[in-house]
Amino acid sequence: MTIKVAVAGASGYAGGEILRLLLGHPKYLSGELEIGALTAGSSAGTPFHEVMPQFPQLADRVLEDTTPEVLAGHDVVFLGLPHGHSAEIGRQLSDETVVIDCAADFRLRDKGEWAHYYGGEHAGTWPYGIPEMPGHREEIANATRIAVPGCFPTGATIAMLPAVAAGLITPDIAFVSVTGVSGAGKKAAVPLLGAEMMGNLRAYNTSGRHRHTPEIAQNLSEVTDEDINVSFTPVLAPLPRGILTTASAPLKEGVTADAAYETYRAFYSDEPFVHLLPEGHQPQTQAVLGSNMCHVQVEVDGRAGRLVVTAALDNLTKGTGGAAVQCMNLALGLPETAGLPQVGVAP
Amino acid sequence: MTIKVAVAGASGYAGGEILRLLLGHPKYLSGELEIGALTAGSSAGTPFHEVMPQFPQLADRVLEDTTPEVLAGHDVVFLGLPHGHSAEIGRQLSDETVVIDCAADFRLRDKGEWAHYYGGEHAGTWPYGIPEMPGHREEIANATRIAVPGCFPTGATIAMLPAVAAGLITPDIAFVSVTGVSGAGKKAAVPLLGAEMMGNLRAYNTSGRHRHTPEIAQNLSEVTDEDINVSFTPVLAPLPRGILTTASAPLKEGVTADAAYETYRAFYSDEPFVHLLPEGHQPQTQAVLGSNMCHVQVEVDGRAGRLVVTAALDNLTKGTGGAAVQCMNLALGLPETAGLPQVGVAP
Amino acid sequence: MTIKVAVAGASGYAGGEILRLLLGHPKYLSGELEIGALTAGSSAGTPFHEVMPQFPQLADRVLEDTTPEVLAGHDVVFLGLPHGHSAEIGRQLSDETVVIDCAADFRLRDKGEWAHYYGGEHAGTWPYGIPEMPGHREEIANATRIAVPGCFPTGATIAMLPAVAAGLITPDIAFVSVTGVSGAGKKAAVPLLGAEMMGNLRAYNTSGRHRHTPEIAQNLSEVTDEDINVSFTPVLAPLPRGILTTASAPLKEGVTADAAYETYRAFYSDEPFVHLLPEGHQPQTQAVLGSNMCHVQVEVDGRAGRLVVTAALDNLTKGTGGAAVQCMNLALGLPETAGLPQVGVAP
Amino acid sequence: MTIKVAVAGASGYAGGEILRLLLGHPKYLSGELEIGALTAGSSAGTPFHEVMPQFPQLADRVLEDTTPEVLAGHDVVFLGLPHGHSAEIGRQLSDETVVIDCAADFRLRDKGEWAHYYGGEHAGTWPYGIPEMPGHREEIANATRIAVPGCFPTGATIAMLPAVAAGLITPDIAFVSVTGVSGAGKKAAVPLLGAEMMGNLRAYNTSGRHRHTPEIAQNLSEVTDEDINVSFTPVLAPLPRGILTTASAPLKEGVTADAAYETYRAFYSDEPFVHLLPEGHQPQTQAVLGSNMCHVQVEVDGRAGRLVVTAALDNLTKGTGGAAVQCMNLALGLPETAGLPQVGVAP
Repeated sequence: MTIKVAVAGASGYAGGEILRLLLGHPKYLSGELEIGALTAGSSAGTPFHEVMPQFPQLADRVLEDTTPEVLAGHDVVFLGLPHGHSAEIGRQLSDETVVIDCAADFRLRDKGEWAHYYGGEHAGTWPYGIPEMPGHREEIANATRIAVPGCFPTGATIAMLPAVAAGLITPDIAFVSVTGVSGAGKKAAVPLLGAEMMGNLRAYNTSGRHRHTPEIAQNLSEVTDEDINVSFTPVLAPLPRGILTTASAPLKEGVTADAAYETYRAFYSDEPFVHLLPEGHQPQTQAVLGSNMCHVQVEVDGRAGRLVVTAALDNLTKGTGGAAVQCMNLALGLPETAGLPQVGVAP
Repeated sequence: MTIKVAVAGASGYAGGEILRLLLGHPKYLSGELEIGALTAGSSAGTPFHEVMPQFPQLADRVLEDTTPEVLAGHDVVFLGLPHGHSAEIGRQLSDETVVIDCAADFRLRDKGEWAHYYGGEHAGTWPYGIPEMPGHREEIANATRIAVPGCFPTGATIAMLPAVAAGLITPDIAFVSVTGVSGAGKKAAVPLLGAEMMGNLRAYNTSGRHRHTPEIAQNLSEVTDEDINVSFTPVLAPLPRGILTTASAPLKEGVTADAAYETYRAFYSDEPFVHLLPEGHQPQTQAVLGSNMCHVQVEVDGRAGRLVVTAALDNLTKGTGGAAVQCMNLALGLPETAGLPQVGVAP
Repeated sequence: MTIKVAVAGASGYAGGEILRLLLGHPKYLSGELEIGALTAGSSAGTPFHEVMPQFPQLADRVLEDTTPEVLAGHDVVFLGLPHGHSAEIGRQLSDETVVIDCAADFRLRDKGEWAHYYGGEHAGTWPYGIPEMPGHREEIANATRIAVPGCFPTGATIAMLPAVAAGLITPDIAFVSVTGVSGAGKKAAVPLLGAEMMGNLRAYNTSGRHRHTPEIAQNLSEVTDEDINVSFTPVLAPLPRGILTTASAPLKEGVTADAAYETYRAFYSDEPFVHLLPEGHQPQTQAVLGSNMCHVQVEVDGRAGRLVVTAALDNLTKGTGGAAVQCMNLALGLPETAGLPQVGVAP
Repeated sequence: MTIKVAVAGASGYAGGEILRLLLGHPKYLSGELEIGALTAGSSAGTPFHEVMPQFPQLADRVLEDTTPEVLAGHDVVFLGLPHGHSAEIGRQLSDETVVIDCAADFRLRDKGEWAHYYGGEHAGTWPYGIPEMPGHREEIANATRIAVPGCFPTGATIAMLPAVAAGLITPDIAFVSVTGVSGAGKKAAVPLLGAEMMGNLRAYNTSGRHRHTPEIAQNLSEVTDEDINVSFTPVLAPLPRGILTTASAPLKEGVTADAAYETYRAFYSDEPFVHLLPEGHQPQTQAVLGSNMCHVQVEVDGRAGRLVVTAALDNLTKGTGGAAVQCMNLALGLPETAGLPQVGVAP
């Protein structure tokens, strides 16, 4: 039996990353997974190789329109559409189709937060695709509708989940996440030009304006009754891919460095895609490039009285497309790690 | 009358930057400033053009040994030596010579901090070269021994000085500073290789281990009686030059965004090298590349209850060599801005 | 007497670079040069700081429309407009105004080449702004209309001019020029995005399709009667600025490495902006970043029987804006090097 | 039956790339391939995770000494050692062990070339690992000693092999290859520092001095009786991985663009790792990053009378480690493409 997969938004970075992983997936290599429709918005009608030259195998494909008709008849449909487009499409696909949405549409539970950060009608909430969060793996495995998390919330959540769950900190957390430029998407805009971004660093959507802020708070709230306070500062840096998240928060009294490290070790000991580094070593994004891994370190800053956590992931892999394929694996009952690299392309 | 200037450590990045600025200085262009000895450590004896090909004007120079004899007879001596070498050299130079030290040797006032972070004997404390700190401009103008600040403390201090001085915040401050790679200096080491750093982000010397931590705290303590608590996380990013400092701290009750902005505006209104950006715009390092400017923005994150400040500078210019020349100008009674670019090399 | 200068196309990279140099020009610093109108196309009406945050001194300016009326009344007008717009504007400005055009409109002499490479009507030919070409310095000094050369032709011409003039080679020359991304200009387009260009190398406009091909041939033809054959391959590399030109051609019999080097040394011995490196050293773009220099090396490849020349320049400085200011200095009778850095911003 | 594989020089870039590919190889994932000894030179005794943090699966390994004893008892031994060390090791390993050498030791056939370019005794010649060269696939499949080609020769050979074989050109070929910095290897040296290489372009080992020059000539000579003349200019550009080779040569009379394209199409139509792009599109290194692909384009420059070919590959994958694994697959009778990505990690 062949699994037939469509990718809506195949001209974008999320869609491209999903395809890259699918073409290396053991089910594809054995002929049991087939790439069906590849759709786009304004690029519909364009030969696929013109927008994605890295896929010689799909060089004869042409991008189709993103319509329910084109996407019908697939076992899995990945949606890599701009925010606000997934709800309508999702509604019209069969309930038996596994629909995995990379946009924000179905991530938030709070209508007020949705209205404040995205505007328009709240489409609803789908099972949220971080299998490493307690209970989520099982929920995803039983779902046919899955919301892939944002790239920043993935790193921030993995960084602080054990600390919040175990009460190591007062959850008044300052996150600063440095990101490669692909996180901004594939849209023609002067501030995203190579000449504007190379040799340059700048923060943006600071002071709680970034739409990932409420998503981070929502995730961490799942494992505590305390109020979560999130300060989130994203910084653009000149590399194509990668997010390095730094997080710090006031340490609760009596928490030692050893206890903190052991909490993290135990929390992630069975996770195939989270790697707590040996003590004394810091995560780096190069070590996870193109992989589905998140590398983590946790330390105590005794002088400042804070817990300091750092986490590295590839925003397009574990941060988007890899998480999407990981969720597909779970939803289809395949091995969770199938087709997902665990070694980064370093150097 | 000609000003004769020597640069000790002319083979390093700090020394090179000082020379770049001196060769564009109006006193040099008019023949009133002369480049004397260029010295080095292990590179002594090497033709200067082999280590610094960007100086055709100095292509016939040879690096000399860093000795008091070679450095004697100059009006100004810049020291760009590894930490721990300036004290001995400084002692042997004439009291009338203006000695400007780019190393850490004379920055800290607290012997305990020195011992903890650097080890060895505390050499003493020289006037500290951030003219933008209250009282420092005058002190530098009257000094013949000046300690140039570290690159991170310069950005962190400019970012938070007005807030601390005006009591806008509880001074429990989380700094995350993203830096270009030249900050690590010009030493052959595998982790500093291009292949290890391009396409890569990583934090280092986290959790209070970075030697600039006590320097930041010392600076901010000058303008308040409150205890300063500093959490400092440096992050390496793949660009040659530039530091983007993000700083946040709990806002004191009743402080509005307008009040915070006005505090910063007033604090820096007469400073030639600090530019508070128009509201709504974020600093970027490209805009200050090769210049002596520090661009700043201040905001209130109402959701998180924090003041959020960002600051961009070039670690080799305002962060080191530009600050050194700015101090030289003050100490010699020249216009403070002479020879110091105020426009960044963007894009 | 104050020199009043306007920049048309001040929102673009060429315009920005001209302004950066003008603001460091001794005539500006002494108050004898004034920045007049700053104009743009679609950005007219925009506050200047929004498109050029690196100019705090001009932060209160607003971009005006590019019209003859706005540009009238200046002593110097720099045109940094898209190709095809300069002719009409130029015609309407006073004959006494020094008009310096950074577009291609007035570079080519051959109407057929113009028609083939640019299309539309040939506007004419202005004195061509490479003062290092024999006779050009004098022509520029007497001109009020000057065509600034393309960035690739500047490097290619400086690289091969002495060899062609001296007959060292059969002028069947293969140029491959690797360029930073700012050469593509400041236009929103997906292939120019940071994510598309970082970590990437690609050739473009290969096989004689690049518009700079006939300009290179025209320049080299000025110093020989032989037919010039140019193969030109531009390659995009992930850096903001810089062009590294490699050029090779069959060596004529009997030409030695020493003779070739001596030919170049003699040819450029009096040029302030061309630096022939000591033998055995290769030019690098970092050494000329932000400067008006072109660094050159010439070698003989005995095995292949070819002369191999390499040249490094900053495409926005010596390649565009610096050349424009160099021409302004000549046309106004100022020292040719005024305001033009001779030291690159390295590292 | 399990295939036991050792990697000598596992601390270097070639060794790391081989391991990355092996850990994604289907035989490893099915438990039929086992990673045996990991050895190093000066890093012997170091925990593997300290030099290669991207391998959580191997985090408990320690680098061993590179001795015949340690390497004995494996089915496959990859040698990623500095030039000159493979001969001795290779001699002491069992004839039945498949030994795949990534150094230059066994690539050249001509003793004089070896002496000129490498010095010391010529170790001999092993079957040469570009399966895409006529006859080589079969030779490799029957070999237990294989010499992996240099990264530059791989691109240059694939670029020009069809043209030389079909006599499209006079084989007087100018190659300019722009390379990412990992090609220089993982050795601590100031010119390889990130700060020296970011934002920088420079040629090196020009004019026939690069050791890959005779290897390119040797390869192309296999398919023609004409004398091959190679001019080779390598250029360092600021990216971690990737080589963009440009090659041009005088076109023989009567060769049309269509004929040239068809020659290339036919030559590579069955090759899984060579992709001739659709006409009008240029190869880019991002599209092959981390993959074993070489993307190629061929054009005719009618104006200059030259054939112009461009080729993109990842110097560590198809240029080294991927070629090594491709050869292992052939030598072991596994499917040639097993474990070798055919999609680049773009963007």
